[in-house]
Amino acid sequence: MLEKTTYPDTLQHVISYFSHLPGIGRRTAERLGLALMSWRPEDVAGFGAEIGKLRSSVTGCAICGNYTEAGFPCGICSSENRQRGIICVVEQVSQIHVIEKSGCFHGLYHVLGGKLSPVNGIGPGDLRLKELAARLDAGVSELLLAITPDVEGEATAHYIAHEFARPGLSISRIAAGVPVGADLAFADAATLASAISGRRVMDD
Amino acid sequence: MLEKTTYPDTLQHVISYFSHLPGIGRRTAERLGLALMSWRPEDVAGFGAEIGKLRSSVTGCAICGNYTEAGFPCGICSSENRQRGIICVVEQVSQIHVIEKSGCFHGLYHVLGGKLSPVNGIGPGDLRLKELAARLDAGVSELLLAITPDVEGEATAHYIAHEFARPGLSISRIAAGVPVGADLAFADAATLASAISGRRVMDD
Repeated sequence: MLEKTTYPDTLQHVISYFSHLPGIGRRTAERLGLALMSWRPEDVAGFGAEIGKLRSSVTGCAICGNYTEAGFPCGICSSENRQRGIICVVEQVSQIHVIEKSGCFHGLYHVLGGKLSPVNGIGPGDLRLKELAARLDAGVSELLLAITPDVEGEATAHYIAHEFARPGLSISRIAAGVPVGADLAFADAATLASAISGRRVMDD
Repeated sequence: MLEKTTYPDTLQHVISYFSHLPGIGRRTAERLGLALMSWRPEDVAGFGAEIGKLRSSVTGCAICGNYTEAGFPCGICSSENRQRGIICVVEQVSQIHVIEKSGCFHGLYHVLGGKLSPVNGIGPGDLRLKELAARLDAGVSELLLAITPDVEGEATAHYIAHEFARPGLSISRIAAGVPVGADLAFADAATLASAISGRRVMDD
């Protein structure tokens, strides 16, 4: 009889943690764990220390929900160079960084933390809507909803448009349409329908 | 002027470490770092702690080079249920675990830590060959070379076969050939050449 051979405990634990990350399967987790064994020991220790303090060092910004150093408003909320009259509403923090990389939005953000989804039991009380309402007094003139244009996203956008409607506040949505540079032949019907209904008159 | 927006320092560091793992690009590293922000904080702390102690808890087995709890011979070397007369020589620790999963080898292992590669400046002194020589007195009757059948692997195997030749020691190599279940149509010429030259007479 042979014993079951396995990795030493600590390595096994590291591999197991890796395998709980999204898109990391059992085999990949094993490869990542073994890769750490060939790093310089001080780099591995540094990696562990940074992960170890991640959740105490980084929290949600009390204003917008973006990730920030614990105890401080995020770099965008505290910047003096942002347009403070327009708030872009996103589902998740990662979307802030995608929009920032585009370089074409200079206002503030608000992270909802999800979309309305009755099927998954996510109602208005589970999103950061009260926090959003609290921000609408300070001279905000536009809410730009940058929410994924799927069924739940539509429902969420319409809920916000209805609940937050007030004089002097424009509520807009990012355009849904064909990605720039994409071949029309690969666009799905729903995207094409949005692109056509949202068509714009061309300037001369 | 807008400041460059980025993630909080600790998150940025975690993402940067992730991106140094093999097969993990910039975008995937960002996704993994953000994923940790949605884990339970105690799990993230646990992950960090395990990585932090990885390189002090796990070392190479002083006998064979397999990973083991620091200070102890590995589970295979210390097992009483292994055939001690045959040593399987591999390049890397990960190959031990592939062979163990096959369940068809019951001897001991020896990790070389690489292959001879003059181009990369890896000579005999860089491999664990002295450690292998030191093990050959203890009634070892066979060395099974499980080294990748490429140019450097060939050179390494022939070097060992030549240097370690002695009466009473059989030095063998794993067979190179067509993978079980693979369509011959997809086999490359070198693999087919090995498969044909290594053909075996069928039993009745």
